[in-house]
Amino acid sequence: MRRPPRLLFLQALTLFVLALAGCAARVIAAAPVDPLPSWNEGANKDAILAFVARVSTPGGPGFVPAAERIATFDNDGTLWPEVPVVQAAFTIGKVRAKVDRDPSLATQPAIKAALTGDLGYFTTAGQTAIDELLAITAANMTQEEFDTEARLFFQHAQHPTLKAPYTALAYRPMVELLNFLRANGFQNFICSGGGADFMRIVSQQMYGIPPQQVIGSRIDKQLDQKGGRLVIWRTAKVASVNDKGGKVLNIDAEIGLRPLLAAGNVRSGGDIEMLEYAGAGARPSLELMIHHDDPVREFAYDEKNGASLAAAQAHDWNVVSMKHDWNVIFSR
Amino acid sequence: MRRPPRLLFLQALTLFVLALAGCAARVIAAAPVDPLPSWNEGANKDAILAFVARVSTPGGPGFVPAAERIATFDNDGTLWPEVPVVQAAFTIGKVRAKVDRDPSLATQPAIKAALTGDLGYFTTAGQTAIDELLAITAANMTQEEFDTEARLFFQHAQHPTLKAPYTALAYRPMVELLNFLRANGFQNFICSGGGADFMRIVSQQMYGIPPQQVIGSRIDKQLDQKGGRLVIWRTAKVASVNDKGGKVLNIDAEIGLRPLLAAGNVRSGGDIEMLEYAGAGARPSLELMIHHDDPVREFAYDEKNGASLAAAQAHDWNVVSMKHDWNVIFSR
Repeated sequence: MRRPPRLLFLQALTLFVLALAGCAARVIAAAPVDPLPSWNEGANKDAILAFVARVSTPGGPGFVPAAERIATFDNDGTLWPEVPVVQAAFTIGKVRAKVDRDPSLATQPAIKAALTGDLGYFTTAGQTAIDELLAITAANMTQEEFDTEARLFFQHAQHPTLKAPYTALAYRPMVELLNFLRANGFQNFICSGGGADFMRIVSQQMYGIPPQQVIGSRIDKQLDQKGGRLVIWRTAKVASVNDKGGKVLNIDAEIGLRPLLAAGNVRSGGDIEMLEYAGAGARPSLELMIHHDDPVREFAYDEKNGASLAAAQAHDWNVVSMKHDWNVIFSR
Repeated sequence: MRRPPRLLFLQALTLFVLALAGCAARVIAAAPVDPLPSWNEGANKDAILAFVARVSTPGGPGFVPAAERIATFDNDGTLWPEVPVVQAAFTIGKVRAKVDRDPSLATQPAIKAALTGDLGYFTTAGQTAIDELLAITAANMTQEEFDTEARLFFQHAQHPTLKAPYTALAYRPMVELLNFLRANGFQNFICSGGGADFMRIVSQQMYGIPPQQVIGSRIDKQLDQKGGRLVIWRTAKVASVNDKGGKVLNIDAEIGLRPLLAAGNVRSGGDIEMLEYAGAGARPSLELMIHHDDPVREFAYDEKNGASLAAAQAHDWNVVSMKHDWNVIFSR
């Protein structure tokens, strides 16, 4: 049967429209979805969405070129739990293993204190005691050997009360925030008191943050030759503690750009300067101070002198309540 | 006139095919072009092309995931000329301006030596003399003030013999190499003895390398308050000289990944360890040692003890002859 010309034309036109639509589908964005589903509706979620829209809308009053959209995040207590501090668990595990092989080590005061959880000893004895501990747990080995040990720890260790591998304990709302920022042209950095080398082992898999975007505390290293090959040797001396004002100086040294967004948490006051620095520029900024107030789903604790919350109030930072702002804490 | 049905159909079909072609044009890559047109055909160009293909071909024997494709480049003499060292020109210009305003400064030995180009004085007097010069040229100001001064320098200064702004003097073959690497998933870093803060002012515009991918020498800084605002204050003390083994340790500290490609140049031996480190991994690597042997188009110089060329021979690195490997040096 011969089809009427108009029908033939319409069929071809349909093909044409479909082909155009196929093109368009590659260009038009997907229907809007909530980029932060683990965040409850409220002032903090609104502030994040408004801030990201403001700095990333071309021609808008707060527009910042993508290349300059830097965000810095504390890690312990901001991206994953800090009760216990994960690196302390790693260190104590290594001390135990060493003492198992050589029980005479247990008579050293620093080792005894580590095994009994006597943090007061380290506060009193100071840097020398910490160096002693470093010497048998994180130093006197090549960088490659340390990486292997840290990788093994993350493969096997479990959080003592949350009963999950540490790598499963990223805060889901923060991972959503990292993804949302990245999708809007931000480059995310960790800037934490934890050891840079320790965090780098899991930063990509947990947060999508590659090693070169991890700023942390560091020990002194030196070059050595081993089997005719250049190696990096870890010494038992602390080179840089990435905390308080040190975070700002290390951001300046390693990034060289002021963050537009900085996030830390209430516990030790270690993030105050970093947030203050983010807010001291001429451009829009957002500062998040996470408050651990959820003893049921995570932990609840405050700061002795209340400095972080006082700074948040003075500077009008956003205080995030884990209990009220987050409808889920972990992904597991 | 009523058109015959077949013609109507053909017209519609033509539209359909054109629409499809429009789609395809966005997908199909352009015909192959030489990514390194300023490099003459030869062993070095072949080595670069083969190396990049090897590490970026999925499933191939030398494949490295894009996230781990790191390349590190010395700057002075590797990406731009070092006769004179650009930062020295900046420093001397600042000394002159200071002495113009306060002629009594010219009696200070370090300042006198800088003005007369007496490098021997600095070799003899050592760090104290360098600190003295730093104090009046690069320190005792906020980081923002330094950035403004460096920006002004680059807007106005000209190379004394090449008669062009320093920002027009990137080596074109190296810019092509940077672009080629970036197009193949590499992340390029500068790792140079120059001041990180100085290089960061022009690294994006000249090389497409953002500030956070610039590793350099650094002075000590501290936090201060100025008008109730947190500022970074530059002190007159050198914190880190990014040269020789220091380059490897700073790559480890700031990147945390071993480079697959490292490039330096013959003059002081300052890049030997960086290239050695790139080559000491388990994966494929490429090391480029640039030799300044073109007195007509640029400069010709060698190294007193010949250490860089000796290391290149011992480790089988690629020695790049500016005269023979590059058919053009600058873009201007």
